[in-house]
Amino acid sequence: MDNRKLNIVRFVSVDGMMKLILKRGVEQVLTELAAHIEADFRRWQHFDKTPRLASHSTDGVIELMPTSDGGQYAFKYVNGHPKNTRDGRQTVTAFGVLADVETGYPLLLTEMTILTALRTAATSAVAAKHLASPGARTMALIGNGAQSEFQALAFKALIGIDRLRLFDIDPAASSRCARNLARYGFAIEICRSAEAAVLGAEIITTVTADKANATILTDNMVGAGVHINAVGGDCPGKTELHADILKRSDIFVEYPPQTRIEGEIQQLAADHPVTELWRVIAGEEAGRRNPRQITLFDSVGFAIEDFSALCWLAGEIDRTGLFEELDLLADPDDPRDLFGMLLRAEAA
Amino acid sequence: MDNRKLNIVRFVSVDGMMKLILKRGVEQVLTELAAHIEADFRRWQHFDKTPRLASHSTDGVIELMPTSDGGQYAFKYVNGHPKNTRDGRQTVTAFGVLADVETGYPLLLTEMTILTALRTAATSAVAAKHLASPGARTMALIGNGAQSEFQALAFKALIGIDRLRLFDIDPAASSRCARNLARYGFAIEICRSAEAAVLGAEIITTVTADKANATILTDNMVGAGVHINAVGGDCPGKTELHADILKRSDIFVEYPPQTRIEGEIQQLAADHPVTELWRVIAGEEAGRRNPRQITLFDSVGFAIEDFSALCWLAGEIDRTGLFEELDLLADPDDPRDLFGMLLRAEAA
Repeated sequence: MDNRKLNIVRFVSVDGMMKLILKRGVEQVLTELAAHIEADFRRWQHFDKTPRLASHSTDGVIELMPTSDGGQYAFKYVNGHPKNTRDGRQTVTAFGVLADVETGYPLLLTEMTILTALRTAATSAVAAKHLASPGARTMALIGNGAQSEFQALAFKALIGIDRLRLFDIDPAASSRCARNLARYGFAIEICRSAEAAVLGAEIITTVTADKANATILTDNMVGAGVHINAVGGDCPGKTELHADILKRSDIFVEYPPQTRIEGEIQQLAADHPVTELWRVIAGEEAGRRNPRQITLFDSVGFAIEDFSALCWLAGEIDRTGLFEELDLLADPDDPRDLFGMLLRAEAA
Repeated sequence: MDNRKLNIVRFVSVDGMMKLILKRGVEQVLTELAAHIEADFRRWQHFDKTPRLASHSTDGVIELMPTSDGGQYAFKYVNGHPKNTRDGRQTVTAFGVLADVETGYPLLLTEMTILTALRTAATSAVAAKHLASPGARTMALIGNGAQSEFQALAFKALIGIDRLRLFDIDPAASSRCARNLARYGFAIEICRSAEAAVLGAEIITTVTADKANATILTDNMVGAGVHINAVGGDCPGKTELHADILKRSDIFVEYPPQTRIEGEIQQLAADHPVTELWRVIAGEEAGRRNPRQITLFDSVGFAIEDFSALCWLAGEIDRTGLFEELDLLADPDDPRDLFGMLLRAEAA
């Protein structure tokens, strides 16, 4: 990176991100992201961690999610606005930056709407690898919106899920999800209810978008041995599971100070026992201990996952050259002469 | 903004920012920024406020500074790395984003290295307008780096300062500052010491960059009636003034929870009385009360100033069309079909 123009930050647009992913293949990308995420979770203690900084409004939330491992710094801007789809906008959009800690200079600015969908799915699949019953093949996928296909493919790529049971309150969403996944070799069943979807599923993924305390799953729907991948409950007042399920489950989380505010466990006492996922990945704590245990990954998304995704992306664009150059940083001839740069621009 | 392409975020590059400022004139821009800052300080209570989120490392700091007035959301990424100039980099670089609270969508992404220099200077001059002796014409400017010319011009534009007394430990910095300001009608004296620089100055601006508890000013150097504009002390362990000066001064700050951590007053007890600048601007508290009083603006920079600057910029680019378009936000034909966008890109 030494010969780079100091004013330039590498930029990956939405179009650039799509090209990059398609070149590599979605499942391959999910596998590589999962590897980065696992590696970073294994060195969890090297990271500066803080709950994300959320700015809540009536219709949604805007969040900043920073972290650093002392060598690189990453942050993501992400919004969550469930009503956005009414005007043709995304519920969740995101962009992110990777920066060099030594100089504080941003290295890379990228779209992260697509990258977030990928890293969220990859994280879910990493958790399931450690928590779901070995040999699981069937997943119920409740909520068939923007995140659903990514979840399905990550679970296929990482743990071999090849049977999907879809449910969405909007049947068109399920049809679209099934259509989009048609070429990937899943056996897919579209179900009429969440109750129907969970039948025979070893893994239940909930990924709905309402900003409300909903009850997508009730206690009677969850049988012994199931792994629940709860993705949609991710901010205060936004949950998907009945509290009774939580009480029967062994709960695994990313970063407790954040999950207790934002996750399903906001419904529980502040000292309800949870296990940090990174400890399972690092071998410090057990994941699944027996075949009848209900495991629950209460996923809210944490900054380290974005860090992992950004580092993966930095490597990809280094290798492929698939980036643009953004004139984002003032670079006067003499670094102490910022004003002189203006004067010279005027003279020129 | 209704007919805008939903994938597009407006972008102002460094080059674009320079064009925009030169078109309008630096002093005019400083005056307009000051007006925006004053207006926003007057409605201080409308803003969500939080101390900036700082990630400290050995050589510097990376900070995120968000705020919102409920209609728009702004944040700035800014670093502070004093050693950067050794490799030709800026001590401070920044970029920022203005977003729409209702949708969470970013509206504008911009370089903010130059814009931060402008808004910092404008804020200092706004404070001096309310705190310095009326009719002040002479300013000592201690620290003649990247921020110095902007400070001088803001004080000229807003309160009529036309005599400058420069000092920097690097005489070349003072020469450069004097040269850059030559055309702006100041009487400029380059001084051999900080002691010499403050002689006869009604306003003392300190804007040095070392990340250390330095003592740029000692108590005997500050006479009655002076206004001190202390800009350089802006993170933990980085101060410029001897504590005895602080004890003789009436101290005005932006946002106490942040300034107590980062400003000159980190040297004082946590309950040392300070006045919030916005209360003076809003007419709730007195500024300067008598001609012998020493007033001190302990400036660290607050997110609302960046918000003001970003809103000013949004208006400017609306009016002038001086922006680029950045393909930053995924915009699938069907907002719930993010994955389908990938498939269609592949087909295309």
